Amino acid sequence: MLEIISAQLCGLSRKCPPPIPEPACVAIFAGDHGVHAQGVTPWPQEVTAQMVGNFLAGGAVVNAFAAQVGAEVCVVDVGVAAELPSPVQEGRTTGLLPRKVRPGTADMTQGPAMSREEALRAVEVGIETARDLVAAGNKAIITGDMGIANTTASAALIAAFTGADPAAVTGRGTGIDDLMHRHKVSIVAAALDRHRPDPTDPIGVLAAVGGLEHAALAGFLLAAAALRTPVILDGVIAGAAALAAAALHPDAPAAWVAGHRSAEPGHAVALDKLGLRPLVALDLRLGEGTGALLALPLVQAAARALAEVATFDSAGVTEKE
Amino acid sequence: MLEIISAQLCGLSRKCPPPIPEPACVAIFAGDHGVHAQGVTPWPQEVTAQMVGNFLAGGAVVNAFAAQVGAEVCVVDVGVAAELPSPVQEGRTTGLLPRKVRPGTADMTQGPAMSREEALRAVEVGIETARDLVAAGNKAIITGDMGIANTTASAALIAAFTGADPAAVTGRGTGIDDLMHRHKVSIVAAALDRHRPDPTDPIGVLAAVGGLEHAALAGFLLAAAALRTPVILDGVIAGAAALAAAALHPDAPAAWVAGHRSAEPGHAVALDKLGLRPLVALDLRLGEGTGALLALPLVQAAARALAEVATFDSAGVTEKE
Repeated sequence: MLEIISAQLCGLSRKCPPPIPEPACVAIFAGDHGVHAQGVTPWPQEVTAQMVGNFLAGGAVVNAFAAQVGAEVCVVDVGVAAELPSPVQEGRTTGLLPRKVRPGTADMTQGPAMSREEALRAVEVGIETARDLVAAGNKAIITGDMGIANTTASAALIAAFTGADPAAVTGRGTGIDDLMHRHKVSIVAAALDRHRPDPTDPIGVLAAVGGLEHAALAGFLLAAAALRTPVILDGVIAGAAALAAAALHPDAPAAWVAGHRSAEPGHAVALDKLGLRPLVALDLRLGEGTGALLALPLVQAAARALAEVATFDSAGVTEKE
Repeated sequence: MLEIISAQLCGLSRKCPPPIPEPACVAIFAGDHGVHAQGVTPWPQEVTAQMVGNFLAGGAVVNAFAAQVGAEVCVVDVGVAAELPSPVQEGRTTGLLPRKVRPGTADMTQGPAMSREEALRAVEVGIETARDLVAAGNKAIITGDMGIANTTASAALIAAFTGADPAAVTGRGTGIDDLMHRHKVSIVAAALDRHRPDPTDPIGVLAAVGGLEHAALAGFLLAAAALRTPVILDGVIAGAAALAAAALHPDAPAAWVAGHRSAEPGHAVALDKLGLRPLVALDLRLGEGTGALLALPLVQAAARALAEVATFDSAGVTEKE
């Protein structure tokens, strides 16, 4: 598995051995979801903004894991429902990047989550973010996400792009019970029935049943490929966004590394469809970029294995008989 | 999975949150195997000593991965067949630690691999090494191993301790073909038939069919527990040694973290018996400590998750409804 990553890093950098992909930064795309109104999660919507505050204060798991692996953290407000206090600082690539397209999506069971124009603008936010992070010197970028109810939108996206049954791709998110889970499956099914999204029109799928952070992540993943910069994907939210990005450009996955396989059932379905095998599988169900951050040292080790290891010939080791 | 590690680190340190387990050092126990004479591997025995030279020159994968995760490397010559040039330096805990018990084991198909006294001395080498590394300030220690033919001895140990069929636990080591694999299985079976080792006498099992590095690793794993220091286990060699250590003291696994699951079939059997679930599974079949090193940042992240993360209460996040 590491040799595949090594070869991928060579291809992206057009160098063998490839440079070690550091420094790195995780971009946490934050957005709210109108489908929250349907009671798909026990968490109030305001938790999205509160957790953004926690990321900025350095108190979340993503901050601890980023510190452990030497990565920076930035939070992109692409669609938080609340007003976030944020002094705009030109050229900043850490802290909060205020790039709100709209304050949360609309309820996808009542109409499209957003307009095509809004979906495109959110994709552009992701592209712009990747560009800024790479321009700031990052040699690897990492997906993160925050948004109460975003596993519901992810399930709808994964079902739309893979044709899987809603029940097979809708998970328990942040710990819901059987009753709420059954309800969540029915909500995903109802949204798909209403919109019948066409997987050959990825922007249309994102607009109908996606989240602003999904659209932004799709742009982020496309831009990483265009910038030949490795990007490590976190969990089911990134997996859902990756299906949209792969549908927009089939070569984009060449820049992607699946960092973590989450406990959400839709994530495995998305990774299978994308042909990606995750580097770690720790059953995290946290999002934020936590799983992908834990994979960063493995990706860096894969580069080092080519850069710093002697051949048997150069080390004077006898070949096998 | 990370929460289990977090709790384990609290228990070992008797502190919550636990200290982050750094610095760390991997100890590569190197030994040769008399069963090499039976043609169980295409690699000449001299490769063991050559790879020790490569470790000391910093040219092996273990060196690259240790550099990536910030760990030191030491090599313990507990039984390399060749004379290794080594200036003894008192108190040193990196580089080569010359603690040879004997220059390789005897051929286990012809008689015991070593005497009980030699097995015990090798166990003591492992204990002494763990003590030295912890005294030098290491807060986590990591198992490594080097020894041409050591997957053969590992298979015999795993079969002896678990009762598994030799064919179910004997793998392809460093890439052997079908013919040599069948021969290797028959050699493991012949050694077990000859000695009929008693799993309730772990030193006897190690002496009959083990390697000097297995005995040393068993001591290393026992000492880690006695010193309340987390130890990360690498692949099938450590797994085989761990079965011996667990048989010597059933509480010892409380200090162990399974770092990596290798591609060797015996490793999964050993981990199942020990009740350990590996943190990463990358199909490495390299040994040296490479897999365990990649798990080190995950173990450190588990400690940080308790040490540095705000509670929902302290971060002002609304609880679920």
